[in-house]
Amino acid sequence: MTVTSPTGLPYERVAIIGSGLIGTSLAHAVRVRDPECLLQFADTDPQAVEVLGELFPDSLATTDPAQAVRDADLVMLCVPVGAVGVVSGQIAKHVKPGATVSDVGSVKRSVMGAMRDAFGPDVHVIAGHPVAGSEQSGPRAGFAEMFENRYVILTPGEDFNIEALQDLTRFWRRLGAMVEVMEAEHHDLVLAITSHLPHLIAYTIVGTADDLESVTKQEVMKYSAGGFRDFTRIAASDPVMWRDVFLNNKQAVLEVLGRFSEDLSALQRAIRWEDGDKLEDWFARTRAVRQGIVELGQDTDEVDFGRRSAAPVPKPYGDD
Amino acid sequence: MTVTSPTGLPYERVAIIGSGLIGTSLAHAVRVRDPECLLQFADTDPQAVEVLGELFPDSLATTDPAQAVRDADLVMLCVPVGAVGVVSGQIAKHVKPGATVSDVGSVKRSVMGAMRDAFGPDVHVIAGHPVAGSEQSGPRAGFAEMFENRYVILTPGEDFNIEALQDLTRFWRRLGAMVEVMEAEHHDLVLAITSHLPHLIAYTIVGTADDLESVTKQEVMKYSAGGFRDFTRIAASDPVMWRDVFLNNKQAVLEVLGRFSEDLSALQRAIRWEDGDKLEDWFARTRAVRQGIVELGQDTDEVDFGRRSAAPVPKPYGDD
Repeated sequence: MTVTSPTGLPYERVAIIGSGLIGTSLAHAVRVRDPECLLQFADTDPQAVEVLGELFPDSLATTDPAQAVRDADLVMLCVPVGAVGVVSGQIAKHVKPGATVSDVGSVKRSVMGAMRDAFGPDVHVIAGHPVAGSEQSGPRAGFAEMFENRYVILTPGEDFNIEALQDLTRFWRRLGAMVEVMEAEHHDLVLAITSHLPHLIAYTIVGTADDLESVTKQEVMKYSAGGFRDFTRIAASDPVMWRDVFLNNKQAVLEVLGRFSEDLSALQRAIRWEDGDKLEDWFARTRAVRQGIVELGQDTDEVDFGRRSAAPVPKPYGDD
Repeated sequence: MTVTSPTGLPYERVAIIGSGLIGTSLAHAVRVRDPECLLQFADTDPQAVEVLGELFPDSLATTDPAQAVRDADLVMLCVPVGAVGVVSGQIAKHVKPGATVSDVGSVKRSVMGAMRDAFGPDVHVIAGHPVAGSEQSGPRAGFAEMFENRYVILTPGEDFNIEALQDLTRFWRRLGAMVEVMEAEHHDLVLAITSHLPHLIAYTIVGTADDLESVTKQEVMKYSAGGFRDFTRIAASDPVMWRDVFLNNKQAVLEVLGRFSEDLSALQRAIRWEDGDKLEDWFARTRAVRQGIVELGQDTDEVDFGRRSAAPVPKPYGDD
């Protein structure tokens, strides 16, 4: 039931458990949209709680999640997906009946299972995933525009409450996002290819480069503008969050990884046997995918992500 | 021998064969640095020659490379590496004695061999590679700042002329680049890991995603902000150029690809056996590499490549 003004959010009190990049971005976005909405934070790390007090001085911040969820209309679990079960257990008895519990994790089937096990029928459990982020992490990394023009996938399961789903949809839309609803299993397969496999590959190649004996680390960094540097951004993402993603989406990741490995072997063979036509054909068809992404507003159309203008000022010219 | 003013370039007449991204960027950079320097272009494509006439109205542009190299002090081959041998054969008899012939290709051993076979001892052959680029191609894609604060690797071989190397070094430095000299074989190994393998992997995964039956193309594009979109930029690079790179650097690419595949298998196994410690350890050490790249000025330190500010304006808020 929507209780607030047309410009406000459908919740008067939002609890955010976990103060990483997404949790704090959510808090900033809520603050910008509705200064009246009460925010209640919990984080296991006392230092993070201190930072939260600094960033959101008018809000509750505590190390005790049970305290943070008290009277909240919406409880957002913004912790690594492997921690959702434990945190749900800690707060289950303290969540207000009729409240909605959701999350922001990159895996939905295991999270949905963990939340359903913990909460009774008087709480609306709707898992969610904003497909947004950056390579930074921690409470100071968040920013209010994080979800603008980004997709949020909700996986309400089978016996969801329609009003609760409508309110959660409205909430995300008012933070600038586009909302889609799908099955948790399908979400996990889609994200395995659009997010999890790209991260696994980026982590792998950055490690491979770092391990080479014949090429120095300095050389890897100096000549990284040939393509490698792009992978290092993704491979700078939060290690614990990503460990949990792979442990919790094992099946789908192994499935798309198998397909990728097959394709890579085929291209490897084309290189070995100097099959130029096969290589050129493969390389020519991938341009269209990028064009589609740019048209959907999911990436900038600027050359080189617009980094050209962001290049550091070079040393004075003519220096011999 | 340097003949020009302190602010000018060490060549009075520069021939640029091939008018793609790098060839035209080179021309723009030369124009900006030294409006007096004569530019002479050749491209096999008459349409490209027309564009060159439009972009550089005070220069010679022709489909005949033999005509373009006449009297040039520096001849830069800016063609796919597989075409260097043919083009060298076409111009060999027409290059001025004492001139320097160089190139910009991403592979150096095969290019160096092809150029040495074509040119006599009265021409200075010094292969080169500016580690710079973008996902765009064609004569209109070039821009003058392309080489600013980027590394250029020169591979002069064993019996090079010291003055010719000094002049070419000075030339690149005056276009804003940092110059390094190394063995062609070592260049090819370094670039195999910092550029060629990243491109191969990006091309592979974008194709893999495009082929999946269980995930629609629309879904791949909509949810690409989870990491995939970054790979599509690299996989939008010029197909012919990259086909030639892989055919001409087979050995080094297969070597680093072997190492990558081993590492990927190890991480695949860690996922299958749920070895969280191994995953977390691997993911934690790759952050330092990115930090080093940013410190060397080879990537922006802005979050998400600075794309945050480039995000399209979202649809109006509050839209239910």
